[in-house]
Amino acid sequence: MPVLQPILNLVELLHRKGLRDVVVSPGSRSAPLTIAVARHPGLQVRVVPDERAAGFTALGMAQQTQTPVALICTSGSAVYNLSPAVVEAYFQQVPLLLLTADRPHEWLHQQDGQTIDQVGIFANHVKRSYDLPADYMHADSPWFIERTINEAFDLSRSGPAGPVHINVPLREPFYPKPGDVFRPERGRVIEQVAVSPQLPAETWHRLLADWESTERKLILVGQTPFQPDLHQILTQIGRELNVPVVGEIISNLGRSDAFISQTDTILGQPDEEELENLRPDLLITLGNSFLTRNLKTYFRKYPAAQHWHVQPYGDRLIDSFQSLTTRIPVEPVYFFQKLFADLDYQHFREGVEDDDEEAEFLTVWQAADQAARRVVAQSLRDSPFTDWVATQAVLDALPTNSHLQLANSMPVRYANMCGLETSQAVQVWANRGTSGIDGCLSTAVGAALKTRAIVTVLIGDVAFFYDRNGLWQNGLPGNLRIVLLNNASGHIFRIIDGSSQQPELETYFETPHQLTAERTCADFGVAYEQVTDSGTLATALGTFFEASDRPKLLEITTDKYVNAEAFKAYKQRL
Amino acid sequence: MPVLQPILNLVELLHRKGLRDVVVSPGSRSAPLTIAVARHPGLQVRVVPDERAAGFTALGMAQQTQTPVALICTSGSAVYNLSPAVVEAYFQQVPLLLLTADRPHEWLHQQDGQTIDQVGIFANHVKRSYDLPADYMHADSPWFIERTINEAFDLSRSGPAGPVHINVPLREPFYPKPGDVFRPERGRVIEQVAVSPQLPAETWHRLLADWESTERKLILVGQTPFQPDLHQILTQIGRELNVPVVGEIISNLGRSDAFISQTDTILGQPDEEELENLRPDLLITLGNSFLTRNLKTYFRKYPAAQHWHVQPYGDRLIDSFQSLTTRIPVEPVYFFQKLFADLDYQHFREGVEDDDEEAEFLTVWQAADQAARRVVAQSLRDSPFTDWVATQAVLDALPTNSHLQLANSMPVRYANMCGLETSQAVQVWANRGTSGIDGCLSTAVGAALKTRAIVTVLIGDVAFFYDRNGLWQNGLPGNLRIVLLNNASGHIFRIIDGSSQQPELETYFETPHQLTAERTCADFGVAYEQVTDSGTLATALGTFFEASDRPKLLEITTDKYVNAEAFKAYKQRL
Repeated sequence: MPVLQPILNLVELLHRKGLRDVVVSPGSRSAPLTIAVARHPGLQVRVVPDERAAGFTALGMAQQTQTPVALICTSGSAVYNLSPAVVEAYFQQVPLLLLTADRPHEWLHQQDGQTIDQVGIFANHVKRSYDLPADYMHADSPWFIERTINEAFDLSRSGPAGPVHINVPLREPFYPKPGDVFRPERGRVIEQVAVSPQLPAETWHRLLADWESTERKLILVGQTPFQPDLHQILTQIGRELNVPVVGEIISNLGRSDAFISQTDTILGQPDEEELENLRPDLLITLGNSFLTRNLKTYFRKYPAAQHWHVQPYGDRLIDSFQSLTTRIPVEPVYFFQKLFADLDYQHFREGVEDDDEEAEFLTVWQAADQAARRVVAQSLRDSPFTDWVATQAVLDALPTNSHLQLANSMPVRYANMCGLETSQAVQVWANRGTSGIDGCLSTAVGAALKTRAIVTVLIGDVAFFYDRNGLWQNGLPGNLRIVLLNNASGHIFRIIDGSSQQPELETYFETPHQLTAERTCADFGVAYEQVTDSGTLATALGTFFEASDRPKLLEITTDKYVNAEAFKAYKQRL
Repeated sequence: MPVLQPILNLVELLHRKGLRDVVVSPGSRSAPLTIAVARHPGLQVRVVPDERAAGFTALGMAQQTQTPVALICTSGSAVYNLSPAVVEAYFQQVPLLLLTADRPHEWLHQQDGQTIDQVGIFANHVKRSYDLPADYMHADSPWFIERTINEAFDLSRSGPAGPVHINVPLREPFYPKPGDVFRPERGRVIEQVAVSPQLPAETWHRLLADWESTERKLILVGQTPFQPDLHQILTQIGRELNVPVVGEIISNLGRSDAFISQTDTILGQPDEEELENLRPDLLITLGNSFLTRNLKTYFRKYPAAQHWHVQPYGDRLIDSFQSLTTRIPVEPVYFFQKLFADLDYQHFREGVEDDDEEAEFLTVWQAADQAARRVVAQSLRDSPFTDWVATQAVLDALPTNSHLQLANSMPVRYANMCGLETSQAVQVWANRGTSGIDGCLSTAVGAALKTRAIVTVLIGDVAFFYDRNGLWQNGLPGNLRIVLLNNASGHIFRIIDGSSQQPELETYFETPHQLTAERTCADFGVAYEQVTDSGTLATALGTFFEASDRPKLLEITTDKYVNAEAFKAYKQRL
């Protein structure tokens, strides 16, 4: 009997658990999985030939849906080609289900094709790794598969979300014969009931007392996808409790009277007294990683007496600033809503006046933020046409309610130095789990497939050409906009102090090239336009975000020497 | 103190152990390694931005040099991008040294950039994995590093050669300041004395007695790089002892009166009596994997009473045909030279006549080979222009003493059905360790860098576009020739019986596209020519192999339906 029947059942169960999207890379060993998902009317299946690009495309989709997206690939090195996306998903906490076809294990080390040691291949970079049986004769096998599928799907989406690996050894024959009829059987859905951790009253009152007895409090937000509830409560806390709420562009706060965002410039300045004035006594962090060295170095050098990290899931101590005193394993929204409600009620009941010192600490941060904005604005005004100038123009032109995908390594930094207004309501995404350049374009393609909003990816030339195969898929989404900052080299190395001073800079770090994206766009049916100065950029941006049935790429050509000089001028202003 | 001094020492020791070639992908964490190799006058350093392509480029280089080639990459997902090449090198037994920069381990899970769990990341797909200390203060640290470098280098090149991983945690500062002078210190080279296993007399005589008492003997050669000694002794055995020596195109025997190569056609025919006549009583195998299903299925279905596998290294039982009786862990050259010498002497002393039955068995195989050649010739003569027809024309035109790199999945199969004449003296290579399509182009680039011979890679369109970033490196070798069989799809799925009958064939397996290589060639400075029929192909081949200072690509456009029909016609002839 072909192996298709149990695989159809498996796919049917996945669908009933909630699976909707699948990315497939073609292969023969994986054919039963491919056929099973292709024949399922409830699944959207996308084909991406390069597994590396497939992995990141799925990651971009799952970022949007917050539901596991399944990846199917054949056996052998195909599996390893998924690994860059897997490790990014693991650290970015994005749910993926990796369905890797395998030969039955008895064929390992028998010089058979596409046979490698796939069990547990992703090691510590998946939440769990399962290995299905190759044979289904014994009744325990379907039971094991059914249980595993239920567990794996729930595990992938439960906090912290992440990749889960299901290795699927498959025996021949893979293909049904013409005329064979298979119907999926309904397996058993096992429901995993969601719970949310709450703080006991005693603990809560102790924390509240600490909060109230501390003058200089600061809330610092790491990378967080945009969440309306969180955004709202942090706005209230910032405005009504006079507490600085500080973030980077990847925190999805934006810049407003409630939020401080110019951290890279604020904390990059050398005046020790001013930096000391910014130091909180109680630091509360939430979210995932922070972007800039200036921010991370600052909070290590000027540690708060108390540092609370509000992080709902996992059991690791994440002590990025080497000053953590309390880990609070609850949802940030719950924590801050509870905090605000209690403090608000207390204020109402006790008629507490606004605390002067609290207000003053906020003022110090707001003043620093405004000063930083002036430095940035002045730097950009005095600058020739650079990546940074272009980035500011692009950010200013982004449509309201659109999405921005920021590629590593310089684009995310330039965008962070610019910042976005909260009122722009732009959702910001970036692969800051492992911060690789390897899948930024594919991720944006995946994201654009799962939202109707315009998705703009701001990307440098090395990251773009690295991940060009992200465009090698049929049906590229028309809401994708690629803004390519092409300075003909790995530009970050000319910005970093150390590498820029080495004789090896050009040959071994920058790796200069003469590529433009024009031919790549022609190959993949992407509308292409190139600009080389502010005037042509402004003109291009005038129509760039208009609706289109195919993606558009705007190539912004800059000079690496000019970029480096302008960056140096900015740093001298600090 | 910058970390550069101990890293310079490490690189100096690697050079003294025999390292000559390094492939670097740019990064900041890896900067000390990059600078150390760039400043070493005895090392040739190549920069390849995409780590996946870098890995396969290094693999192609190491195929040629049979000496470890070092790879340097930065921390994070960069490391995983090496993994497809690592697993191919592991199963193909190619020596690579993976020098992966890492953050010091205390930064793992601290939401720091490009920090993943790199220790042992390649699991069972490296020969060993080392993790260097991040601190060098204690005297045991330099001792450990020195010992490790010696062991790792020797381990990588000793049989079976393979990848060895050295994880290198590095602390800042990475970069020397201007004016800083560092000189590498000479570390201690520890010599690993080579030994070769010999067979004790008693065992040998038992084997010899078995050989002599068996009439129908067959030597079957798996994938083996061209080795003059091995080639010579197998020629002698075939000719003088009347034993069929059988191989595929990747066995590097070619086709001559001494060697039988048309196995795919011979063993693909359905006549059971004829197949039975081809069955040996004693099967002796050597080399790595076999290519075709027909061959593997045949020897499983018609097992020899005795199956000896001559395999010098490792302790695994490789029992591909499920009939292994004896594993002989010595070098094939030693084994066959000893065999021939003893038998020859015995024949001379005893005046033994040629054994009739032996000669008859050889005749059966030779007749089958000739019949198969006629079937192939007839099929090609009657065929319209197809991938296979084009492959035959390309193979016929290959310069003597050149190299042929055969990409997976169809090109290596078509080339095998054609075969090469021994007299062409073409060395054949293919990534048959895991048989992926992921690095075939990069591997050919690497190979061309390390030989003066013309290196022709025969590649299909999916494999070509998948690995296009192999061309993204400065200084592409002028002796590289790319022959691209472009049928606008993953053609193998239309050839395989099962998948060709599925309604999902086109969308989910073939993934049709309209790409040609023209723009890619223009991007990377590769000379481009396209042909669409036998006449233009012949003309193009007339000059294609002439010397050039840049690589050339010949795109052969065929029709997937015509290809599939022609292949079907061939199968009906069997």
